[in-house]
Amino acid sequence: MFLIHFARAWALAVAKAETLEEMKTAAATVHALVHHEMQLHIDTCAGEGVSQAELEATPEAAENLAYTRYVLEAGYSGDFLDLMAALAPCVLGYGEIGARLAAEAGEMPYRGWIDTYAGKEYQDVCRSVGRLIDRALERRLGPGWAALPRWRQLCRRIEVATRLEVGFWGMNLRGP
Amino acid sequence: MFLIHFARAWALAVAKAETLEEMKTAAATVHALVHHEMQLHIDTCAGEGVSQAELEATPEAAENLAYTRYVLEAGYSGDFLDLMAALAPCVLGYGEIGARLAAEAGEMPYRGWIDTYAGKEYQDVCRSVGRLIDRALERRLGPGWAALPRWRQLCRRIEVATRLEVGFWGMNLRGP
Amino acid sequence: MFLIHFARAWALAVAKAETLEEMKTAAATVHALVHHEMQLHIDTCAGEGVSQAELEATPEAAENLAYTRYVLEAGYSGDFLDLMAALAPCVLGYGEIGARLAAEAGEMPYRGWIDTYAGKEYQDVCRSVGRLIDRALERRLGPGWAALPRWRQLCRRIEVATRLEVGFWGMNLRGP
Amino acid sequence: MFLIHFARAWALAVAKAETLEEMKTAAATVHALVHHEMQLHIDTCAGEGVSQAELEATPEAAENLAYTRYVLEAGYSGDFLDLMAALAPCVLGYGEIGARLAAEAGEMPYRGWIDTYAGKEYQDVCRSVGRLIDRALERRLGPGWAALPRWRQLCRRIEVATRLEVGFWGMNLRGP
Repeated sequence: MFLIHFARAWALAVAKAETLEEMKTAAATVHALVHHEMQLHIDTCAGEGVSQAELEATPEAAENLAYTRYVLEAGYSGDFLDLMAALAPCVLGYGEIGARLAAEAGEMPYRGWIDTYAGKEYQDVCRSVGRLIDRALERRLGPGWAALPRWRQLCRRIEVATRLEVGFWGMNLRGP
Repeated sequence: MFLIHFARAWALAVAKAETLEEMKTAAATVHALVHHEMQLHIDTCAGEGVSQAELEATPEAAENLAYTRYVLEAGYSGDFLDLMAALAPCVLGYGEIGARLAAEAGEMPYRGWIDTYAGKEYQDVCRSVGRLIDRALERRLGPGWAALPRWRQLCRRIEVATRLEVGFWGMNLRGP
Repeated sequence: MFLIHFARAWALAVAKAETLEEMKTAAATVHALVHHEMQLHIDTCAGEGVSQAELEATPEAAENLAYTRYVLEAGYSGDFLDLMAALAPCVLGYGEIGARLAAEAGEMPYRGWIDTYAGKEYQDVCRSVGRLIDRALERRLGPGWAALPRWRQLCRRIEVATRLEVGFWGMNLRGP
Repeated sequence: MFLIHFARAWALAVAKAETLEEMKTAAATVHALVHHEMQLHIDTCAGEGVSQAELEATPEAAENLAYTRYVLEAGYSGDFLDLMAALAPCVLGYGEIGARLAAEAGEMPYRGWIDTYAGKEYQDVCRSVGRLIDRALERRLGPGWAALPRWRQLCRRIEVATRLEVGFWGMNLRGP
């Protein structure tokens, strides 16, 4: 469910991109999400006996609604930078957490998950998204972007999105 | 805080209206919210020693984010009907609750609040918004709109928005 | 017809505003456009025997479509500043042209029109919109905004909108 | 230039899709446009000595602005159906014109162009987009969609988009 709205947000980034390079990176992300990650998810659920129709009909939890709609609304109301700020905690967060757990956790049941997000492939995705954001900032705000009020506003977006991302993880710890 | 995003959603309804009548009703609501209700709110807070700058800088609670962003995203992603479906539980909900409490509650500390929403003025607002929605449905979907799949989709929007509205009320019962 | 889309764009500005002050100014403009200017227009047409229904059903000319959709799309795809940049040539353009014609033109048939836009009331609107844009720029980009790439991008928006505004005026000089 | 905004509109369709099937079809179109068609265009221009930077800096003609912004604004202001109605004349129009010219035109200089759009591959794209639209209509409006006012509104969108598409073709017949 979450992946659907995450893919919608990256698709909105294609519509809001200002250069061909921004457009290509965002479009490649949509393609990977829709044609690979979502299919993987659908297949996993099918393996557990949950059909695609059931998946599409599942009501979304409040934490899921809060996070995904915040990201999409940031994208619709703001520009490409606002959308990137709202998306960053998710993309980069998994990478940071994966890298840290890989260093700290020993052998344990979720080792496969940790290795995926700590692995070279996902860490490369993080670096490429990081570069996309850095260039997008410099292209619009110049080399001194970190001193501008716009950057402080984007940091507030990142904070709110991180807070909602934390709530999203917490959802699995509370009962339904 | 909530009123700001509520007014933004009604402003989006002006941009998404398809007739002059829809436009006028939505614009009148924006005007009432921005120039009267919000000012009342600002004045009340000022009376308690909370300045407009402090009010604007208050971080939003998760329930507030979930509800307001759901409404705005419904409006951006969908059309005028989706926006009305997401807004209806708030506008009409206060009216229903006010009318019911007015009949059931005796003298009690919140009697003023109850009388406001049960009173003729607010009940007229509800009837006028209800009429706006009925006409908007008939204008787009014809007289048989209640039998179409589109209407069932709009009902799901109303359900989700109601669920988030309930969460919003619950926010004041939990601690910060 | 044009006024409808112009009012929709100002309504979108309410939804995209970041401060109460921006919100109030944009909302007041929507109110003036929808409840006064558009009504004046409808009454004038009614005086000539053209009903509101006929007015709503008139197909839009290509120049009208180009200009109004450019402004609205700039607003949806960009942020508050992009929307202001796309709206500025219309609001401020009438003021500049009015002021210049008032100084240059003598007695002539369109003197009433000239006096409206050269008059104190409309010139005050221009100054208030100019102030809104100046503050919005400074609030987001800091005092050095005129040196940033973002400002050059906004200038390109202003140029395109001015070009389309010129096309819009030219429409009345060509046949239907 | 045109392809960029066309790809942005299909990306917006991903964000506005309501089923995984709609999402996948729109995402595949974005992928084909951004990673194949646009690259082909960039390579062709590079072969003529026009760099990607020059291409990105070319000012858009008024007809191009009118058509692309109409499509994008229809998508932002309306829902998935409005976006499909605005996109249909372009996708299906090339197919219809190609098929008709293939039957009528003999050997002539643009035979390669005609064969591309009359060929099985492009005709299959048209059929798949047609099916997407038919299913999207039925999913939202039920089997009787052709009798609803909503369908007449969508037909008006198709008419306006076709008119602007004609203007876009005419652009190449007038001087710059």
